[in-house]
Amino acid sequence: MSLTISSPKWESFYAERTKWIKSSIIRELLKFTQQPDVISFGGGLPAPELFPIEAIKKASSELLEKEGQMMLQYGPTEGYPLLNKEIVRYMDKMGVKCTPEEVLPTTGSQQALDLVGKIFINEGDVIFVSKPTYLGALQAFNSYGPEYIGSLMDDDGLIPEDVEQVLKKRHPKFMYVISTFHNPAGVTMPEDRRKKLIELAVKYDTIIIEDDPYSRLRFEGNDIPPLAAYSRERVIYLGTFSKVLAPGFRLGWIVAPKEVITKLVHAKQGTDLHTSTYVQYLAARLCEQNIIDPHLEKVRVVYRRRRDLMVESMEKYFPGEGFHWTRPQGGLFLWVTMPERINSVELLEKAVENKVAFVPGNAFYADPEEGKNTMRLNFSNMKEELIVEGIKRLGELLRREM
Amino acid sequence: MSLTISSPKWESFYAERTKWIKSSIIRELLKFTQQPDVISFGGGLPAPELFPIEAIKKASSELLEKEGQMMLQYGPTEGYPLLNKEIVRYMDKMGVKCTPEEVLPTTGSQQALDLVGKIFINEGDVIFVSKPTYLGALQAFNSYGPEYIGSLMDDDGLIPEDVEQVLKKRHPKFMYVISTFHNPAGVTMPEDRRKKLIELAVKYDTIIIEDDPYSRLRFEGNDIPPLAAYSRERVIYLGTFSKVLAPGFRLGWIVAPKEVITKLVHAKQGTDLHTSTYVQYLAARLCEQNIIDPHLEKVRVVYRRRRDLMVESMEKYFPGEGFHWTRPQGGLFLWVTMPERINSVELLEKAVENKVAFVPGNAFYADPEEGKNTMRLNFSNMKEELIVEGIKRLGELLRREM
Repeated sequence: MSLTISSPKWESFYAERTKWIKSSIIRELLKFTQQPDVISFGGGLPAPELFPIEAIKKASSELLEKEGQMMLQYGPTEGYPLLNKEIVRYMDKMGVKCTPEEVLPTTGSQQALDLVGKIFINEGDVIFVSKPTYLGALQAFNSYGPEYIGSLMDDDGLIPEDVEQVLKKRHPKFMYVISTFHNPAGVTMPEDRRKKLIELAVKYDTIIIEDDPYSRLRFEGNDIPPLAAYSRERVIYLGTFSKVLAPGFRLGWIVAPKEVITKLVHAKQGTDLHTSTYVQYLAARLCEQNIIDPHLEKVRVVYRRRRDLMVESMEKYFPGEGFHWTRPQGGLFLWVTMPERINSVELLEKAVENKVAFVPGNAFYADPEEGKNTMRLNFSNMKEELIVEGIKRLGELLRREM
Repeated sequence: MSLTISSPKWESFYAERTKWIKSSIIRELLKFTQQPDVISFGGGLPAPELFPIEAIKKASSELLEKEGQMMLQYGPTEGYPLLNKEIVRYMDKMGVKCTPEEVLPTTGSQQALDLVGKIFINEGDVIFVSKPTYLGALQAFNSYGPEYIGSLMDDDGLIPEDVEQVLKKRHPKFMYVISTFHNPAGVTMPEDRRKKLIELAVKYDTIIIEDDPYSRLRFEGNDIPPLAAYSRERVIYLGTFSKVLAPGFRLGWIVAPKEVITKLVHAKQGTDLHTSTYVQYLAARLCEQNIIDPHLEKVRVVYRRRRDLMVESMEKYFPGEGFHWTRPQGGLFLWVTMPERINSVELLEKAVENKVAFVPGNAFYADPEEGKNTMRLNFSNMKEELIVEGIKRLGELLRREM
């Protein structure tokens, strides 16, 4: 049936922006590291053995029984109203006051990052990011062609004085901030720094995009409210169910002033019309049934044990001198800074030969020439005995490198 | 806890493209027409009473039981491999040969439209669309700032001679084509026109984006293979489960040459990382169990009856002279062309007063000054007795207008 057709020269058809849209190094790495005998600290996955599968099964059956026609039909871009209400209740517990109209469910918080890019970034706009920062945010923003400025962090996250030095020179459209259990760095900003950061946003007339996937995963210390608890005016908050229920739902949300939500809704209409009604109904029901809090109790115990084991093993097997690692009080990741002469991209090749993997830290910098002596380790998605064994292998390799 | 914060002047923060990103007129209209006593032919919803709820319930329970950890975890951007295989099998039945690597599951076909825009459209690029065309496509493309060219259709869709006249003058980056049961026009291109359109794509060195949500909903006449069956080289095919399973899944797919899929995958990584694993597992299982074909048997019987009733009622109640409507052999919509002096936007206001609604046709034109004497009627989502009553009300209004 086929006609004889010449293929087009595809390169001449692609948009300019495809030059900036690169594959995630993590996704590429995963292909190498997913050999079953490699102990990989490279991913960012929650522990699947803890997923509340029974509760989801029950909710799914009940909902399909009673509301199947609605949960399988098209729905409003603005979100399934009961879910928006449940998100308001969830945010309230974290100290953030908002209304259902100030909430927009998204297809994972990755979509939230894309929508934020879409409504705010003109090509050449300046954006402030921490060094390092979440690479999925860089990926989302890159397709809109921004320029990045940023500043380093210490064990308490962004340093307001350093941030101000940067803001004095260039005015960013927004500051992208992961305030709690930073990905990749694992660090958390204390309350005084949060307040100062908001004051800087006001002083330099900019806004803050706060990405907060992990703050409910605190297994040590006291909760610190998100930046959005201190300022709804200047902070657009991104949340997600990926780490507190299940990533497979692809369900996140944005909390923003109503007028910003309206812009985001218009952008989302063209982007995917709305987030899966089925998944929104499921999440709303699970929230309603208060599944998340008892589920997180279990998660925290396991993640804490894994972090402890990883830190203990690093203390035991890593060379001490010239090495520094963060000791996160929650979340999924810790961050290792090594002596300058160690290049973590080259190190990874040797590590994979030794059947252990991580993510080279430069993947988390807007400029991949930075952070070459750093790496990110994930502790949430690895059985205890393999954490010890994997860190031992990595430690032995590092000792040989020194 | 809140600090005293001044709100930013949001208008000064939005990107230029937000001027082109408007809310869908349909979504806005729905708010008016969803009063329970309004008979609305305005939506584009499948009949929810036909959703295969029992099959979905069973598949969901079984999958969560056996593969819960996988279906709730993160997955590859490229798609859940079993789903890609099932889509290959589905396409094969329609006469389109492809491999799993040439398939990309998307978050509804709306996302496919956005990704196509993202990888192909530079600001100012020329795109060919039919007049009228699907407004969701305009919405997706608009955020990338293209310029539109196009040509009118007759009862057999795009007219190759007219298309060529347009292509001679301007070279489009791509042609966006709904070949079968066109939304909104309800028309289908016969085989010879399909072949000629592909020949034009070759002659003028452009490509075709074929949007095909409805072709499996044929209740009359013989199947005509999609454009992609005649040329995989020049045609990027967009499919969806929304009309053959359930829109609430938000699950569609793209079939394209491998190198284009690679670009789309990179774009999708930044856009939503991947489509819901949960939903992809569900759809793969339902395909595997061959749920779709027997389900569509039932759907076709109902939709045919509703189309018949709508057409019969129009013949009975509409003024004949100066009115023309399409008689679709499948899909969800028919299209009415009225005398020039009738403005369907003004007509809608009066219609809603008379408790009946439709979509004014100019919403489906790149230039909303065109098509003001047209309207789209949906017949799939309305109970039989209400179709007769709604068309009667509309006909009475039209007779008064004449």
